[in-house]
Amino acid sequence: MALIVAKFGGTSVADIQRIENAAAKVVREVEAGNKVAVVVSAMSGVTNQLVDYCTQISPMHDVREYDVVVSSGEQITAGLMAMALQKKGITARSWLGWQIPILTNDVHGKARIEDIDTEELHKRLNAGEVAVVPGFQGVTKAGRISTLGRGGSDTSAVALAAALEADRCDIYTDVTGVFTADPRVVPDACKIPKISYEEMLELASLGSKVLQTRSVEMGAKSGVPIQVLSSFGEHIGSDLKGTLVTREESIVEQEVVSGIAHNLGEAKITVVGVKDVPGVAARLFEPLAKAAVNVDMIVQNISSNAGTTDMTFTVPRTDLQRAMKVLQEDTDFEEALDIRVNENVAKISVVGIGMKSHAGVANTMFKTLAAKGINIEVISTSEIKISVLIDEDYAELAVRALHDAYGLEEYCKIA
Amino acid sequence: MALIVAKFGGTSVADIQRIENAAAKVVREVEAGNKVAVVVSAMSGVTNQLVDYCTQISPMHDVREYDVVVSSGEQITAGLMAMALQKKGITARSWLGWQIPILTNDVHGKARIEDIDTEELHKRLNAGEVAVVPGFQGVTKAGRISTLGRGGSDTSAVALAAALEADRCDIYTDVTGVFTADPRVVPDACKIPKISYEEMLELASLGSKVLQTRSVEMGAKSGVPIQVLSSFGEHIGSDLKGTLVTREESIVEQEVVSGIAHNLGEAKITVVGVKDVPGVAARLFEPLAKAAVNVDMIVQNISSNAGTTDMTFTVPRTDLQRAMKVLQEDTDFEEALDIRVNENVAKISVVGIGMKSHAGVANTMFKTLAAKGINIEVISTSEIKISVLIDEDYAELAVRALHDAYGLEEYCKIA
Repeated sequence: MALIVAKFGGTSVADIQRIENAAAKVVREVEAGNKVAVVVSAMSGVTNQLVDYCTQISPMHDVREYDVVVSSGEQITAGLMAMALQKKGITARSWLGWQIPILTNDVHGKARIEDIDTEELHKRLNAGEVAVVPGFQGVTKAGRISTLGRGGSDTSAVALAAALEADRCDIYTDVTGVFTADPRVVPDACKIPKISYEEMLELASLGSKVLQTRSVEMGAKSGVPIQVLSSFGEHIGSDLKGTLVTREESIVEQEVVSGIAHNLGEAKITVVGVKDVPGVAARLFEPLAKAAVNVDMIVQNISSNAGTTDMTFTVPRTDLQRAMKVLQEDTDFEEALDIRVNENVAKISVVGIGMKSHAGVANTMFKTLAAKGINIEVISTSEIKISVLIDEDYAELAVRALHDAYGLEEYCKIA
Repeated sequence: MALIVAKFGGTSVADIQRIENAAAKVVREVEAGNKVAVVVSAMSGVTNQLVDYCTQISPMHDVREYDVVVSSGEQITAGLMAMALQKKGITARSWLGWQIPILTNDVHGKARIEDIDTEELHKRLNAGEVAVVPGFQGVTKAGRISTLGRGGSDTSAVALAAALEADRCDIYTDVTGVFTADPRVVPDACKIPKISYEEMLELASLGSKVLQTRSVEMGAKSGVPIQVLSSFGEHIGSDLKGTLVTREESIVEQEVVSGIAHNLGEAKITVVGVKDVPGVAARLFEPLAKAAVNVDMIVQNISSNAGTTDMTFTVPRTDLQRAMKVLQEDTDFEEALDIRVNENVAKISVVGIGMKSHAGVANTMFKTLAAKGINIEVISTSEIKISVLIDEDYAELAVRALHDAYGLEEYCKIA
């Protein structure tokens, strides 16, 4: 008998039929002898509608009231899911954030979970009752509703699984798992059966929008295995047909490279010829941070002009105008010779925990891209990731070539 | 300085523009030096959508989960209203049923308010803060969300006004007040400036769907004056342009008759020739009550057949089939000679607290109807009301003739 937290995302509870399908999966887990806590998102479209109401009143609305408004989406699904389970003969009830309670800090709109009281939940789960918990919401010490930020239902699910010391947290979604590359780009992309939290974090933040980053961090911290799987089709979580995100040491057949991520929608900015003195990076990036520009890759090169340096960094293309405004208004950088922008770049990343102990991973990447005549504009590396910036037009070609070069179609044989 | 509870119904908060219009009225009350608590309904259409979801899952859904689902409609409006007030420079916050708390019994779906903790609310109101409370919802002692039944936001508002010992409860709606007759039938119908709780109760239950019956009962018990007024147009509650429902003694210029109500959609059933013995009425109506048939007027006549009696009663036409099924299956009534049904009847009622002390009110009614050649099928009276059942085809003619006969156009001169 296992204790499982099963989370259903917005498309998995988009209408009553889908809520009933999701409930059927929970029933099968219960019939298999498992204890189940269910976490639900809002029906797809509902949160956007509620956010739109708030923005219509004022883009600067009180975020505490925003939390009151938007948390109702998950509340609705929780009640409906409990009904759907009861209809199928299961004892179930909804537990709102304030009823459990799921205590958060008071950073409304982006709250962090601080504590989940599991005593009563454990009692009910042990008695065979299914607990249905709305994702995304909690309550502050002051007794006000808080929300965890967009996509926060994944975080709710993993946090609840950690607090309950669950055996597994199943994240039912509209994809069948985590893939070695985007299947729309690489038709041969394979589902990865097991992946480490660290790799998943790199893939999550690199545009593979399967799991919310914070939920993976929380999984890494608590060690609760997270399974990403499709809510469509016949299987249930315990069939283990999805991708299991887990501790590195529990992955026996570790490949060197797990996946190729690509991220379009980047823009590259180079500030040419700034004085090469200590503190120049801080002077450059502090005003950008203050303007909430999300700076990603940063590379500093020696400039061809003596005593100066060139700073290159990327920002999401949607932040480009804001970034340029900051840089042009920043009188400190009047000294710069030029600010160059390239809006036509893509970031390609090779991710794999195995590259820690394998040499030549980077070299394979560079050789592969060179063989296709693809120029690398910027390189940035971490322990388990190599990212390069290339011309956006070559992004799909690069991903396919790299997928081949690292033999990632091998994953299809494991799964 | 007065303490006012202002309640806005579904059509008054149907979209963001209307929520902002409603907020503007609250702001003007605050600027006039009043303390204001706002009670809001769900945006129109929202509750129906949520109820529909529940019914889709199962018509026999768990009513505790129904309360979780449907209460979210008012929760959304409460957050939005608080934002709209803040945007206009008012300090405001939402107070959900469980946050105040508004304690109810545990009859989910149709709960009754037992206690409202006003200490913190009073503190905030005294400090100039506006409290925004979602109508229709409360919390049980077990800490679960409860709702008060459809139309319950009126009840929430009056209960809150009573608990806060407010000077007035303003019910903003889509009509300008309570009228001497349905203005769609009687173009000369006048708005009644003041009416007693007792009269309002008779009018409310007689098809003038302006205020929920329970809210009027609660007003009568607590003595808090309730004003019905339009949320459209320029005036605010303190301009007293609507209809004030209040204690009889505070109405100085009391007319004999306040209004003429008519109720279509009735059906008349006569059970002919049942044994005239003690207990026959109980035997007849108990199975109907068990089948949740809403029996209204009841009249018992001596039958033309010796030793037997005829029982006549009315039911909503929508309950007719169910009622007939009960009667036909009831073997006790095989003895009855016949069961006659008339689906083409209307109930016309003359309501007025003044008729307690004025003779001839009933006679005027009978004479007026006779003069128009309208046959009366059933008569039923209370202290402040006379109701008759007539052929539905003559309903509008009857209402207009009675409106004339009692000189109700006089009200237009007072207002």
